[in-house]
Amino acid sequence: MNIRTDEFSLIAKYFQRSHGAGDDAGSAVSASSQNRSRRDIAVGIGDDAAIVIPPTGCGIAVTTDTMVSGVHFDEKVPVDAIGHKLVAVNLSDLAAMGAEPAWLSLSCAFPSIDENWLTAFSRGFFAALDYYHCELIGGDITKGPLTLTLTAQGIVPAERYLKREGAQPGDRIYVSGTLGDAALALAAQQGKVSVPPEHMAALEKRLFYPTPRVALGQLLRNQATSAIDLSDGLLGDIQHILVASGVGARIQLDTLPFSQAFAESISGPDGWRYQIAGGDDYELCFTIPESRCGNLETLALQAGVKVTCVGIIDGSRELRFFEKNQACDIDFHAYSHFQGA
Amino acid sequence: MNIRTDEFSLIAKYFQRSHGAGDDAGSAVSASSQNRSRRDIAVGIGDDAAIVIPPTGCGIAVTTDTMVSGVHFDEKVPVDAIGHKLVAVNLSDLAAMGAEPAWLSLSCAFPSIDENWLTAFSRGFFAALDYYHCELIGGDITKGPLTLTLTAQGIVPAERYLKREGAQPGDRIYVSGTLGDAALALAAQQGKVSVPPEHMAALEKRLFYPTPRVALGQLLRNQATSAIDLSDGLLGDIQHILVASGVGARIQLDTLPFSQAFAESISGPDGWRYQIAGGDDYELCFTIPESRCGNLETLALQAGVKVTCVGIIDGSRELRFFEKNQACDIDFHAYSHFQGA
Repeated sequence: MNIRTDEFSLIAKYFQRSHGAGDDAGSAVSASSQNRSRRDIAVGIGDDAAIVIPPTGCGIAVTTDTMVSGVHFDEKVPVDAIGHKLVAVNLSDLAAMGAEPAWLSLSCAFPSIDENWLTAFSRGFFAALDYYHCELIGGDITKGPLTLTLTAQGIVPAERYLKREGAQPGDRIYVSGTLGDAALALAAQQGKVSVPPEHMAALEKRLFYPTPRVALGQLLRNQATSAIDLSDGLLGDIQHILVASGVGARIQLDTLPFSQAFAESISGPDGWRYQIAGGDDYELCFTIPESRCGNLETLALQAGVKVTCVGIIDGSRELRFFEKNQACDIDFHAYSHFQGA
Repeated sequence: MNIRTDEFSLIAKYFQRSHGAGDDAGSAVSASSQNRSRRDIAVGIGDDAAIVIPPTGCGIAVTTDTMVSGVHFDEKVPVDAIGHKLVAVNLSDLAAMGAEPAWLSLSCAFPSIDENWLTAFSRGFFAALDYYHCELIGGDITKGPLTLTLTAQGIVPAERYLKREGAQPGDRIYVSGTLGDAALALAAQQGKVSVPPEHMAALEKRLFYPTPRVALGQLLRNQATSAIDLSDGLLGDIQHILVASGVGARIQLDTLPFSQAFAESISGPDGWRYQIAGGDDYELCFTIPESRCGNLETLALQAGVKVTCVGIIDGSRELRFFEKNQACDIDFHAYSHFQGA
C-alpha cells in the first residue's frame, strides 16, 4: 500500500468533511467546495494551502497551541476530550483578544494509525469546532511521537481587539466563570487531595472539557482595558497584564468565584492554591473602568456568563493578595513546563 | 527557577526580535511594537494571539507543516538547515498558491533546552524568514519529543490565487529549477548510491537548503492554469493536479531538467527515479496554455528562475511517461510516511 495515499485517506476519512451535500442532493460537490460551511473559505483542505477571504476592515487574530502526549494529556483523559481541549485552548486565546473564531489548521504526528483513537479524537474536535462555527482549513499528518498542534484564526474589527496592555490604576479586575475546578480535579486524580466522589465528575468535566469564553470576549471589545485567558492560573497570568500595562494589582482572595463542587470539596487557603496557581481554567481575566462595571455585569448576565470582580488595578507595580482586606503572603508559583531545566 | 519564566525567556532570547531600535536609537520600543518590521502586524509575539491586518481585497493563503526529529531530519542535518527548511517547505506551499509570504507561527516541542541547538536553529530560521520578508508573529514552546510545526500565511489578490484544479488538455506542463538533487544526496548519504565526492556538497546544499520559488509563484498568477509544489516528487505530486483537474498527462522523461552535479553523478533511467519519485525538490510544477509559454519563459528568465516544459496535459485521465516519444513503464512509487501502516 502506498504510504502517501494512507495520509490522504486518513485526512479524507477523519478530517475532511463534505458540507452541503445533504442540502443539495444530486449536485456534484467538487473537491474545492467541500469545505465551504463558512463562505469566507475559498479553498479548503486539499490544495497546497487554504485560501480564506477576510472581511474588509478586520484584523485577524492568530494563535497556536501544541499538546504533547505524556505532557498535556495521558491515558486518563478521554480521547474525545483531547480533541475538544485542543480546540478550546486555542479559542480561549482568541476570546482573550475579542476575536470571533473562524479558521483552524491542525498538524498531527502519530506513532502509528489507531482508528479508534482517530474516531474519538475527531469526534471531540469537530463537536467543539461546530459549536463555535469555525472550520478546519488544512493541516499536516506525519509519523512521530503523538503531538497535536492547532493554529486558530479569528476575526476582529481593526482597532477593537483586546490586549494585555491597557490596564489603568482604578480599573476593576474581573474573572469569568469559576476558578480552581480543573486544578482540583487533576490533583485528585494524582492522589494529592481527596475529593468527595459525588463531585469528581463535575470537576473532571471542567478539566477535560473546558469552555472557551468566546461570546464574552466579543462583548468585552468596547468595555475592557485589557484581557488575558487563564491557562496557567490567575497568579501567573495577571502578571502579564501588569507587566504589559506597567501597573500593579490587589486581589481579594475571598472574592474568587468557585463552583458548588469546588466549595464542597475544599475551602479557604487550601482552595486558593488551586484557584490562583492551578491553571487550566480557560476563563477570561480582564480589567475595566469602574464606570463600566454595571453595564458589563448586565451584558454578561444576558450572555449567560458569570463575571466576578476580584480586585483592583493600582499604580504600585506589585501584585498583592488580600483576605478581607488583610494582606496575605502567597508561597506558591505559577505552572510552567521546563521545571528544573 | 520558575519554569514558565523559562519558556518566556527562551522566546525572548531566541524568537522575539526587536526591530527598529538601531534605526531609532534612544526611542522606547514597547513590547507591542517590537514585531513591526511588517506594518501589517498590529500585535506580534507576546499577547494571547497576534493581530494582523490583511490588505483590502486580498485572500490569505494558510499552510502548515510539521518536522519531527528522526523522521524529517537527523543528526546529519546541520541544525541551521532545520530552521531554514522548516521555513522553506511552508513558503514553497504558499508559492504554489501564488501568494506573497507574510506571517509565520512557530510551535516547538523540546525534550530539554539545548542553547547551542536553539542558536543554530533560530539563525537558519530567521535568515530564511528575512530573505522572504516575512515575520514570526507567535507560537508555542513546550516540553516533548523534538517536533517543529510552522504555520505560514501569505497574501494573494482575491480570485488570482493558483490551485491544483484548472489544468486543461493541451496545456504544457512545466517545472522550475532542476529535479533530483535532494533525493540523490539523501540516497548517497544512506549509501544507496555512489556520488563523485566533488559533487556531494552541491547536491547536499539542495537537500539541506531548498529554495522556495516564491517570486515565480507570484509571476504565475496570471499565467498558470494549475500549480503545485514538488515536495514528494513529480510522480506523486502531478497526480494531484490530474485528479483535481480531471485530466491526464504525458511526461517526457528525457526533458526533465537536471543540475550539472546531478548529470555528472547519475544518468538515464537510474536518474529518473530520483528526479520523479525522490521528492524534497520544492520546485514548482504548473500547467499553462501553449499560447502563454513564450511569455512565461521570458518572465521567468527575467526573474532568474529556469522553467522547463516536461510534458503536456491530455484528456486521458492517465499519467504516462515517455522517453523520446516511446512509452516507458515506471516501477516505483511516490514517497509517503506511513509505509506499511
